[in-house]
Amino acid sequence: MSAYVAPVQDMLFALDLAGLPDLVSLPRFADATPDLIAAVLEEAGKFGAGVLAPLNEIGDQQGCTLEADGTVRLPEGAVDAYAQFVEAGWPSLPFDPAVGGQGLPAAVGVAVGEIWQAANLAWAIGPLLTTGSIEALSAHGTEDQKRLFLPPLVSGAWTGTMNLTEPQAGSDLAQLRCKAEPAPDLGSCLGGDAYRIIGQKIFISHGDHEMAENICHLVLARLPDAPPGVRGISLFLVPKVLVNDDGSLGARNDVKAVSLEHKLGIHGSPTAVMAFGDEGGAVGTLIGQPHKGLACMFTMMNNARLNVGLQGVGIAERATQHAAAYARERLQGADVTDPKAGKTAIIHHPDVRRMLMTMRAKTQAARLLTYYAVAQLDLAHAHPDEAVRAAAHARMDLLTPVVKGWCTDVGFEVSDLGVQVFGGTGYIEETGAAQFLRDARVCRIYEGTNGIQAIDLVGRKLLHDQGAAVRTLVTDMRATVSALEAGAPTRNTLDAASLAPPLGAAVDDLEAASAWILEHASPLAAQGASTPYAHLFGIVTGGWLMARAAMEARRRLDADEGDPAFLTAKIATARYMADAILPFTGAHRAAIVAGPDSLMALEQDWF
Amino acid sequence: MSAYVAPVQDMLFALDLAGLPDLVSLPRFADATPDLIAAVLEEAGKFGAGVLAPLNEIGDQQGCTLEADGTVRLPEGAVDAYAQFVEAGWPSLPFDPAVGGQGLPAAVGVAVGEIWQAANLAWAIGPLLTTGSIEALSAHGTEDQKRLFLPPLVSGAWTGTMNLTEPQAGSDLAQLRCKAEPAPDLGSCLGGDAYRIIGQKIFISHGDHEMAENICHLVLARLPDAPPGVRGISLFLVPKVLVNDDGSLGARNDVKAVSLEHKLGIHGSPTAVMAFGDEGGAVGTLIGQPHKGLACMFTMMNNARLNVGLQGVGIAERATQHAAAYARERLQGADVTDPKAGKTAIIHHPDVRRMLMTMRAKTQAARLLTYYAVAQLDLAHAHPDEAVRAAAHARMDLLTPVVKGWCTDVGFEVSDLGVQVFGGTGYIEETGAAQFLRDARVCRIYEGTNGIQAIDLVGRKLLHDQGAAVRTLVTDMRATVSALEAGAPTRNTLDAASLAPPLGAAVDDLEAASAWILEHASPLAAQGASTPYAHLFGIVTGGWLMARAAMEARRRLDADEGDPAFLTAKIATARYMADAILPFTGAHRAAIVAGPDSLMALEQDWF
Repeated sequence: MSAYVAPVQDMLFALDLAGLPDLVSLPRFADATPDLIAAVLEEAGKFGAGVLAPLNEIGDQQGCTLEADGTVRLPEGAVDAYAQFVEAGWPSLPFDPAVGGQGLPAAVGVAVGEIWQAANLAWAIGPLLTTGSIEALSAHGTEDQKRLFLPPLVSGAWTGTMNLTEPQAGSDLAQLRCKAEPAPDLGSCLGGDAYRIIGQKIFISHGDHEMAENICHLVLARLPDAPPGVRGISLFLVPKVLVNDDGSLGARNDVKAVSLEHKLGIHGSPTAVMAFGDEGGAVGTLIGQPHKGLACMFTMMNNARLNVGLQGVGIAERATQHAAAYARERLQGADVTDPKAGKTAIIHHPDVRRMLMTMRAKTQAARLLTYYAVAQLDLAHAHPDEAVRAAAHARMDLLTPVVKGWCTDVGFEVSDLGVQVFGGTGYIEETGAAQFLRDARVCRIYEGTNGIQAIDLVGRKLLHDQGAAVRTLVTDMRATVSALEAGAPTRNTLDAASLAPPLGAAVDDLEAASAWILEHASPLAAQGASTPYAHLFGIVTGGWLMARAAMEARRRLDADEGDPAFLTAKIATARYMADAILPFTGAHRAAIVAGPDSLMALEQDWF
Repeated sequence: MSAYVAPVQDMLFALDLAGLPDLVSLPRFADATPDLIAAVLEEAGKFGAGVLAPLNEIGDQQGCTLEADGTVRLPEGAVDAYAQFVEAGWPSLPFDPAVGGQGLPAAVGVAVGEIWQAANLAWAIGPLLTTGSIEALSAHGTEDQKRLFLPPLVSGAWTGTMNLTEPQAGSDLAQLRCKAEPAPDLGSCLGGDAYRIIGQKIFISHGDHEMAENICHLVLARLPDAPPGVRGISLFLVPKVLVNDDGSLGARNDVKAVSLEHKLGIHGSPTAVMAFGDEGGAVGTLIGQPHKGLACMFTMMNNARLNVGLQGVGIAERATQHAAAYARERLQGADVTDPKAGKTAIIHHPDVRRMLMTMRAKTQAARLLTYYAVAQLDLAHAHPDEAVRAAAHARMDLLTPVVKGWCTDVGFEVSDLGVQVFGGTGYIEETGAAQFLRDARVCRIYEGTNGIQAIDLVGRKLLHDQGAAVRTLVTDMRATVSALEAGAPTRNTLDAASLAPPLGAAVDDLEAASAWILEHASPLAAQGASTPYAHLFGIVTGGWLMARAAMEARRRLDADEGDPAFLTAKIATARYMADAILPFTGAHRAAIVAGPDSLMALEQDWF
């Protein structure tokens, strides 16, 4: 397996495009100088390449095992790597200094996080879920809960999990059965009133392990007086080991992993069935208000969704590097432009080049999109102007399902192309390309399937505000088209101005598709249109950000700033995206405006 | 894992559409009555469902093992199933009665073959490769070679393999190094002059096993006086066990499996590294003329390519059945058209329905395409009119890379959607959906990657005759558009006539894309356009055949012939294809006419 090298140059460029210069001018991020951020990414790149990446294949081969006593053993090296990770201070990067964080923008945290995901996706799921727990606790915990749990979660001494799914309740959380009962006999504990949690949860990523001395399970359950459906769900924090009021560890709680799944990929991440209360009741503390657990869960979930989109970016980058390295080395066939020169590296074959350019363009577009969305989160938290905060929040909300859905589709598609670049060798597990494909596949499923993301985009975003947030985005896209059209004549054929017509056409498709859905707003029509709409949305947003990147690259080239090879490649990649990827918005628009008649025409029994 | 049921009704319909009624009116196929063909498919369905399908998951889990003595052990049940398969006479179905075949049309053979591939793809690779060996030997063998080898291959007593790839020679066969030396000391043997073969081959599917008492390896190698490159390659038959002139078995030949690959999927099919001549030289006999092995190989390869396309159809059908069964049973969420009715089977959710309809439409279109192409092969062999034979041959030639490329893309895409229909459960191996995805992945790689198929379509098909065969196909497609437009007003909303505009637009895209490539015929432009062109070609051909199917279904409905539910579903499925899949031709056309500038703009080192 080829070495992974963190693409620091592209990450810094993407952070710039996402507005990092404006962010670090805010008082909250005053310490985040450009030099510091560059140094952080360089160091993270070394840690990812040196410590995490070498464990990726081992993790896949060894998988995780459940011992008879309920202990989950991770693959070789995983626990030690986590100890180094915590020792180096990586978990605390983007969190509030008041609870031990380093106060860097979330956008920087996400760039660093891409490195972990690219280096070792299965391993990195653990830290990923912990950040979601921190978000939920920060937003909804009591002061005592925060005091007890945030510092060790932020430092990485403890980790967090999300416990939502039950066998009968996957996408449909209304079916949840897990029970929570008040336990006044236990008095006050874990920073609040005590509850006993009883039930079973499935598909719990990193549900148990020995990386951390404690695991904070965030668990959805029903109180005895809970109304039925999603309005009767509450969120509880259930630690693996009980925590005394001084923060020291107490007795082992009544929660354990009872089996591990045998999965297509991410073998290095234990996916557990968790039993709560087999011996009478797991002790937990309520987060937020009774029956309002869904709102708390969405705080955690939205963070996780952005981070799962980031997994798509990371695995796409890894697969692209892996395939490009092979394509540069593998000699096969003659160069079409110089057939007499003998065999050539396959990177010179136009059809191999098409795969690599597709991989490159989609990976870079997905990176721009993810960093951009997370930078909006920073603005929404840290900007002094309330209007800016509100606008950033709306933009981030709108883009969250797009980041999760489109970037994970990209992660899978790019990994799949990576297998194809290797040809027959790609089908052999030792090559490593197949592992990326298997690992990437889960990202389209967990934290809400991409179908659920698409329904969220149409229902809770587009229809929810009658298209307001989409119209604002379209206005920004149109401004980019105008800026491209107004561009001064440029000095070479890689002309950013030529991106205007294809981008304009794609924005037309977004507008027309949005208008059709707003006009045909029945749940049937909207949900029938949701997946093509989500695909269209991802492509046009990625294409828009790539066009902005090309403009900025053009500006820097014309001003003799930066690395000409990098900047020229950026423009060429944006151009490829406009040539070969943006036109797909038209097909998705056509599928949307065709309406749901043929979609729903078959009787169930005809399948 | 859900039961597999051969879709006999749809298979018979697809055979009708492919022209089976005309075929069986030819003298050669006089015995192939409609009743006989229906009975054959029913029986094959029972064998596939009862004997092969239950071994599919076992094969995946157990895989194949190589014993110290070079013997390859197949998973439990595989050898016994093969014995039953031979006993029942399945291998000989489409072959010449003169060598023990049953003389049925190849189109019937392909329908039966779909059942084997759907039931157990890994197992069915063995019989698939044997048919390629029979084709090559029938076309290029001497009378003695045919006498010795055809009857046991046709009966299935022996099996065949294809030995092409070497580590340095994958898509680029010019790099072959395997040697063949005349062995006059051995006199006449194996039906001709003897040769000694020395070298190593990799990725040899079913390279060794104990299903059959002999394995006929067809091996590409170089004679001592061979010119370099592909004009110096010869084809040899190298049996695992030597064959005496009376057909009885002699000594073990100097050929053996020396290792097995650890693959993403098709674990039930041993993929071997084969060593020829480790102990002095494997004895072989030359097939065809010296240095003309490539032509012989293409006989075998074209057969294998159609059959690999068929694997795509089979696995797509299997994945569709598997996902639809789950979607009918899994209760989750409320019906959007009746939210108060409580939880519903997920098949009623529009977004799940979109996945299932996409799976269904693409599977049925791929079936129509594959059966149609193979029926052209029957016409090319059996029709009394030379002009009809030539036209059928040209059509089959043109469509071979489309069948291989597009249908295997469909097989993978449909299997991937199958995983998604299952949600989290789909990522768990025990569900079975992931196996289809893993197994289907190889079909886009072997027998020439789909990139090679696309280059073949553009170079050896479109450009080779300056677009003649494509123009003939476009004319047929236009005739269908006209027939749709001329359709009488119909009695319900599932109106075949409404398919005319989207099909017409897709045919426009095919014409425009073909014209662009013919005009920009440099190898760079042509190969740069090849993959989008192949995708466009597959979609429009599939959409065309689905539109013809809808017309025929409409005709039967109006004439009160056949099963109204089946026929109505066929029209609705064709309509879905026109609504949601055909529009993608426009995106591929745009990528083609954008030309290769952005594709090739990056320097190698910028990747």
